[in-house]
Amino acid sequence: MPVLPNEYSIRRVKPSDYEGIVETLRVLTVVGDVTKEQFEETVAYWNEVTVKSKGEPIKAYNPHVITDGSGKVVATGTVFIERKILHDCGLVGHIEDIAVAKDQQGKKLGQLLIEHLTELALSRGCYKVILDCDEKNVGFYQKCGYSIKGVEMDRRS
Amino acid sequence: MPVLPNEYSIRRVKPSDYEGIVETLRVLTVVGDVTKEQFEETVAYWNEVTVKSKGEPIKAYNPHVITDGSGKVVATGTVFIERKILHDCGLVGHIEDIAVAKDQQGKKLGQLLIEHLTELALSRGCYKVILDCDEKNVGFYQKCGYSIKGVEMDRRS
Ligand SMILES: CC(=O)N[C@@H]1[C@@H](O)[C@H](O)[C@@H](COP(=O)(O)O)O[C@@H]1O
Ligand SMILES: CC(=O)N[C@@H]1[C@@H](O)[C@H](O)[C@@H](COP(=O)(O)O)O[C@@H]1O
Repeated sequence: MPVLPNEYSIRRVKPSDYEGIVETLRVLTVVGDVTKEQFEETVAYWNEVTVKSKGEPIKAYNPHVITDGSGKVVATGTVFIERKILHDCGLVGHIEDIAVAKDQQGKKLGQLLIEHLTELALSRGCYKVILDCDEKNVGFYQKCGYSIKGVEMDRRS
Repeated sequence: MPVLPNEYSIRRVKPSDYEGIVETLRVLTVVGDVTKEQFEETVAYWNEVTVKSKGEPIKAYNPHVITDGSGKVVATGTVFIERKILHDCGLVGHIEDIAVAKDQQGKKLGQLLIEHLTELALSRGCYKVILDCDEKNVGFYQKCGYSIKGVEMDRRS
């Protein structure tokens, strides 16, 4: 496994990550005009939802950032934990919204983030972790230990 | 759109759906030895998690069943609503755990269920509804108005 560059760190998202996350997510897709207030409300919501893992409540939303030595957000991503009936009332981790700042690519930050979120979900008892990606990113996720499972389909409003 | 056969109905899951859901889900995958108590605890959890839609709290988990004239569960499926930052703090619907009893196939129950769950999610303000399926079910979901979006990948514990 690669390691984080010197002085970089990985941690759960804080309300003060507003600018850093909004800017980083623009690499992935449309973000729109999210205000600081809307961002903070969303982080508060993410902090509030729990799910039982091995009898104890844990956080269902697990949004993370990687920051550089100056504290700037350089990558972000999350894993959401879903409770099902199947697989013995199993838990499933959904990895979502992975984005690495353009000028930080080549440092394996994406791989480190995926590894961190995957380990978090598996250690909480998820029987699997899944994600959806573009055809062109399949090779990257295979390097992160993922295999092709099926087809993602969508319907838009 | 097809219509439900006479006397069939669609509704949110109740704690008393234990046997019907556990049996129906076995068509889809491994269920294991889920007890009545575990089932009821899971339904209670699903009823408890909320997410804000247009300023009002709504249920994040939306598990449904189709029942026949005798009240027997003949199909089940759910849509989970996730809160994101991207797409203007958008909501995404995740359709999961769709199963139709073997002896009920050919009545378009799967299509009716998908349509119901999709409309539920879109009417709550989701900017998209997504699902993952086997290659062999792509044609079925296309009939339900879905398009191929990407690749589902997984990592198992
Ligand atoms: C592994 C990963 O990060 N997958 C992301 C997904 O989490 C994100 O929500 C979506 C946004 O795309 P959209 O703007 O088309 O909804 O893109 C990708 O599928
Ligand atoms: C649209 C639909 O119903 N997709 C289901 C998914 O919701 C379910 O959780 C999974 C279980 O498979 P597993 O036993 O391999 O985890 O199968 C399919 O992908």
